[in-house]
Amino acid sequence: MFTPSHHAQGLWAEPDSNQLAYNDPATWIELARLCERGMFDTIFFADVLAPYDTYQQSRDATVFEGMQFPTGDPSVLIPLLAHHTEHLGFTFTQNILQEHPYPFARKMSTLDHLTGGRVAWNIVTTFLPGAGRNLGYGGLPEHGDRYARAEDYVQAVYKLWEHSWEDDAVLRDRARRQFADPAKVHEVDHEGPYYTVYGPHLSEPSPQRTPLLFQAGMSGTGRAFAGRHAEALFISSTTPESAAPVVADVRRAAAGRRIRIFVPQAYVVGSTEAEARRRDTELLERQTVEGNLARMSVFLHHDFATDGPDTPVGELRNRPGVSRQVRDLLNAADRDDWTLGELVRWVGNRRLAGTPERIADSVEAWQSVGVDGVNLQYVVSPTTFAEFVDHVVPVLRARGLVQREYAPGTLREKFFPGSGSRLPVSHPARARGFRRWGNNLKG
Amino acid sequence: MFTPSHHAQGLWAEPDSNQLAYNDPATWIELARLCERGMFDTIFFADVLAPYDTYQQSRDATVFEGMQFPTGDPSVLIPLLAHHTEHLGFTFTQNILQEHPYPFARKMSTLDHLTGGRVAWNIVTTFLPGAGRNLGYGGLPEHGDRYARAEDYVQAVYKLWEHSWEDDAVLRDRARRQFADPAKVHEVDHEGPYYTVYGPHLSEPSPQRTPLLFQAGMSGTGRAFAGRHAEALFISSTTPESAAPVVADVRRAAAGRRIRIFVPQAYVVGSTEAEARRRDTELLERQTVEGNLARMSVFLHHDFATDGPDTPVGELRNRPGVSRQVRDLLNAADRDDWTLGELVRWVGNRRLAGTPERIADSVEAWQSVGVDGVNLQYVVSPTTFAEFVDHVVPVLRARGLVQREYAPGTLREKFFPGSGSRLPVSHPARARGFRRWGNNLKG
Repeated sequence: MFTPSHHAQGLWAEPDSNQLAYNDPATWIELARLCERGMFDTIFFADVLAPYDTYQQSRDATVFEGMQFPTGDPSVLIPLLAHHTEHLGFTFTQNILQEHPYPFARKMSTLDHLTGGRVAWNIVTTFLPGAGRNLGYGGLPEHGDRYARAEDYVQAVYKLWEHSWEDDAVLRDRARRQFADPAKVHEVDHEGPYYTVYGPHLSEPSPQRTPLLFQAGMSGTGRAFAGRHAEALFISSTTPESAAPVVADVRRAAAGRRIRIFVPQAYVVGSTEAEARRRDTELLERQTVEGNLARMSVFLHHDFATDGPDTPVGELRNRPGVSRQVRDLLNAADRDDWTLGELVRWVGNRRLAGTPERIADSVEAWQSVGVDGVNLQYVVSPTTFAEFVDHVVPVLRARGLVQREYAPGTLREKFFPGSGSRLPVSHPARARGFRRWGNNLKG
Repeated sequence: MFTPSHHAQGLWAEPDSNQLAYNDPATWIELARLCERGMFDTIFFADVLAPYDTYQQSRDATVFEGMQFPTGDPSVLIPLLAHHTEHLGFTFTQNILQEHPYPFARKMSTLDHLTGGRVAWNIVTTFLPGAGRNLGYGGLPEHGDRYARAEDYVQAVYKLWEHSWEDDAVLRDRARRQFADPAKVHEVDHEGPYYTVYGPHLSEPSPQRTPLLFQAGMSGTGRAFAGRHAEALFISSTTPESAAPVVADVRRAAAGRRIRIFVPQAYVVGSTEAEARRRDTELLERQTVEGNLARMSVFLHHDFATDGPDTPVGELRNRPGVSRQVRDLLNAADRDDWTLGELVRWVGNRRLAGTPERIADSVEAWQSVGVDGVNLQYVVSPTTFAEFVDHVVPVLRARGLVQREYAPGTLREKFFPGSGSRLPVSHPARARGFRRWGNNLKG
């Protein structure tokens, strides 16, 4: 995320962190090169459009810690990073409330052109009331309405990407001084419940046309949406056992359509198990309590300030009227002398600390339940990535768990080798012919 | 413009043009380096969000010629080009109908951070009905309404850029693990007639905070807007004599506020006057008639198809009922055997063909009426820029008409050396204090 502090709150202050230099292009160039050296498929940029303000009903802890705030626009980094890499993909998040589909479709096509087809879109509907307020919606449209908007939004951009310019519309004929054939460029005439877009699309067809499509929503509605649209999915399971039914459900929703599934993982590497655990514990102790309370308050939809974060866990266990979410948390504690704040910090930063071999075992365990890959979350950047590339990747490679070289072609072809650069014709984005009325003028 | 063909229609097909490679990052990197070698202040990206469709009431000629269509999103090129240059500025156009002020303000701040303060915004309201349709407004809001929106829009983004984060809000205190002081970061609470934005701004203060502000509107309303807001202005005068009263009027509207004024100029360079004129004539003859009719139909608000573009000028002169715009055109013709189409092509491509000395004389003539600089329009890219840099710039430099080195600092400091990187306190963007309610939560 284009921000000082993403997941591991407080650790931007570590001496080996360059997270404070998040506005320096060199920081990102270095990271992209490192990821390509480690054969990562893609960098993934998360994004939010408002500071978290659940904890203490205030955004003060968020601002204090630089926790996913401030945050830059990740899209403008991508051509720069693509220029310094050859194969790495660039996935970024943009919620469907942020921008009208017409200019968004152009931005995405521009990125796909400039990167040679290495861009992916993580489709989100946002969950932050503040984002809805900041974007002029008055507040956040309710969940079902957001997904109805998302469906309308993707239909509009699909038409622009897939159904405006025919494959042979562009001629580049110097002798006739003809750039394109007007009869093969079409208005899309989208009039949906939320969005109207006439077109034609402002971009000629890019290598992938539709970027590789990621999704992350885990509600029933979100999973159905992913089943229809996504080619890759982030799920939030914390163990292979709990992931297995989710994976099965996602694959069922996708109805045979190919979909790559990723889980978030954070690692602390050591040359021995003991060393790794010691490092992890030391890092955890240097993490801030407030930042973690602020982050977990958002994701558990609960203001931990109301429970008294300084209260020892043992005392809370005996308190009547504690919410189910807090009780689940308390039951996860293995130390009664922790405060609630310390417990939240621990729960919010569970990571695998171990040797490269132990981490490779874990990757195998995920794979055994049908998970395709890991979304590596940094503890300290760039240390986490460098350690993974230098120490874990060689072990994964020896076990055949990571690619030895990139597949040729676009990001979609790297995800699905041999598939071609376009979405399959069975995907809903392509289930529509060109409209044959290229000479008409709308409006 | 991020497109195959900007002004000189048809010449993308010349053998020395790389305009077809407009989606190749290398094209733009080469151009940016060339411009920096020539001591240009800034690259300027124009932009439109719909194909021109006045001529023949169709966008077919536009699509045929690749005339300002397709067009990429220029903003995502900027960090890449900034990485390959040290001083050059990057000015891009974004109309206020395109994007909500909140994410736009973030994009601009991100660009200002990533470029070290070398970005400028050309504020436009768009004149294309197609853009209004494509952006979901149903059509184009009327002129006065667009400027009322623009006023509201800039007030919203000014508040985010100038009045959300205090100068000393960011601490980056590793010892306390404190990124920023929440009491010095403010919601902006903008509730205008068109836009609501609460904030706080998603970006910490960038080098310029508010980007350098360009404007181009030449109506009375547009000029008043420029007088209030712009630090640089494109005017469309074609002679120094006609520019003089415009310059005076703009400076009056600016009421003593500093403002840089630029005129569009296209040059064809020769080692003799005769050679330059011959080259210009040859280029003109290879230009397309249709493309120029399509472009001039838009800018003269007149469909030249209705007048019979194949009709000889001499015949049209004697035809009753010819419109005033066409009659003005006809009176500009110096050859009766031209067709209307050829005449429009000629009028739409008037450029100065001459030796570097003759071009330098022209620059002096512009300067003598208070014009600050030239917006160099290419005839063929990159040839026009290379010829200008290699042959005209040395003459301009010898006469003290072009900078010998860049001033240090941000783009604003390069435009106004010694001024500091921020807008002056007298600018309306800064005429407002911080609101002291940092701990409150909105909504």
